[in-house]
Amino acid sequence: MARVKRLERVVALTKELVDNPGELFSFGLFCEKFSVAKSTLSEDVQAVRNGLAAYDLGVIETVAGVSGGVRFIPYNTDESNVNFLRDLSHKLQDPQRILPGGMIYMNDILFTPRTTMRLGEIIMQRSLDLHPDFVMTVETKGIPLALSVARAFNIPMVMARKEARITEGPAVSISYLSGSTKKIQSMSLPKKALPNGAKVLIVDDFMRAGGTARGMEELAHEVGAIVVGNYFLVATKEPVKKIIKEYASLLVLESVDGEKKISKINPEII
Amino acid sequence: MARVKRLERVVALTKELVDNPGELFSFGLFCEKFSVAKSTLSEDVQAVRNGLAAYDLGVIETVAGVSGGVRFIPYNTDESNVNFLRDLSHKLQDPQRILPGGMIYMNDILFTPRTTMRLGEIIMQRSLDLHPDFVMTVETKGIPLALSVARAFNIPMVMARKEARITEGPAVSISYLSGSTKKIQSMSLPKKALPNGAKVLIVDDFMRAGGTARGMEELAHEVGAIVVGNYFLVATKEPVKKIIKEYASLLVLESVDGEKKISKINPEII
Repeated sequence: MARVKRLERVVALTKELVDNPGELFSFGLFCEKFSVAKSTLSEDVQAVRNGLAAYDLGVIETVAGVSGGVRFIPYNTDESNVNFLRDLSHKLQDPQRILPGGMIYMNDILFTPRTTMRLGEIIMQRSLDLHPDFVMTVETKGIPLALSVARAFNIPMVMARKEARITEGPAVSISYLSGSTKKIQSMSLPKKALPNGAKVLIVDDFMRAGGTARGMEELAHEVGAIVVGNYFLVATKEPVKKIIKEYASLLVLESVDGEKKISKINPEII
Repeated sequence: MARVKRLERVVALTKELVDNPGELFSFGLFCEKFSVAKSTLSEDVQAVRNGLAAYDLGVIETVAGVSGGVRFIPYNTDESNVNFLRDLSHKLQDPQRILPGGMIYMNDILFTPRTTMRLGEIIMQRSLDLHPDFVMTVETKGIPLALSVARAFNIPMVMARKEARITEGPAVSISYLSGSTKKIQSMSLPKKALPNGAKVLIVDDFMRAGGTARGMEELAHEVGAIVVGNYFLVATKEPVKKIIKEYASLLVLESVDGEKKISKINPEII
């Protein structure tokens, strides 16, 4: 019986940890939940760690000290990530996805939870050292990806709008020059959304010249937040010189030929 | 050693299942991955089932037959769901959330992945019998919730727009009368988004009179899809008569007094 009980406990512990990536659970909480001593729990945590490690399914991190505990960090091997991104590149190169203006139709991919959650985990894994407090995006298509990155980090997301809404209270607004269309546009963020000094990772689905990302940077600065990074699903190779200084992307759109219906998309190998 | 190996395997199996809610994994796939016979795998699956059941953490469903397999269905007890929704109601009743026009500020809640994922699971749990193929929402605030419902069901999400975008290709558009503002508005959906005959669950964060939801219904019909349900995070009590016929919500906004800064929000008990 004891063995069965341990197995059940380890199943439940695994579920709680992997279902809440980045969340630090105190040992005390689990000891109480499973009615076990700390030494037993430590052995169980070790079992979860070994099980996940044995199959490259993620990392269990133990934080020592009074405010310490245990948490799950989603992790995939670089090889598995690159394979995933290569498959995605092939899908995106489907000629039927090429739209007028050299755009690529990506909604179906961005809105499939399994895919976007995985993309969020890869972006998290590649920006772990940035330690953001918030993920920021601008409406609309980037929202699922931004939410997925936020979930992998276990931090909230904030969203800038193309125009302020009454349902979001007082807002700050900026004007910016769209890099591609050279049009002046405006963007706003509810004042409540970001606390002063918050570290922000900007996430969006697509970046060409970087005008929109630059607008988000300005908006973040305007409310006293600090931009620690810019991450995109797809960035175009051209123009080589972007309006924002630093950024990363999972995929690079090397070229699109709208006439011949040919696009070239590759994973960004890091 | 054999015991440790089993423990590790069960941890990995738990992770794969709970991380992909709704996804049907064939026994063969797991037998290969873990290099075990089907009888051993069956025992492992039983262990995961028991472990999750013992702590009310979800259901492991086995589907028999050639195209069968095993899948995880997120599940929380009604009691735990109602407690979660009651806590959320209290948070939403904070006087500072009341905005001009009797609106409630909810962005921080909608954009916190842990919260919105849980809400998605509750909506899934309460609409399991609808068997939707797609979750549909309209930009913008409802997107994280819709994505979370879609994740819990393991189905894709589609998004209607207030105006068609070049990056989404050919679209169908409809005009509709907003229930609250009595203004004529338009809404569009990319033609590629929904296949003919698809069963659609409409999800949004807030519903007052139901004009926007009605618009989504029309849009779905326009592309030959079938609306199987309407689910909202918050629906207002007034007006009692809504434009849409059938709907459900997790919370009910009973009343808002913008002057006195008092709102009354309760979980919908089912």
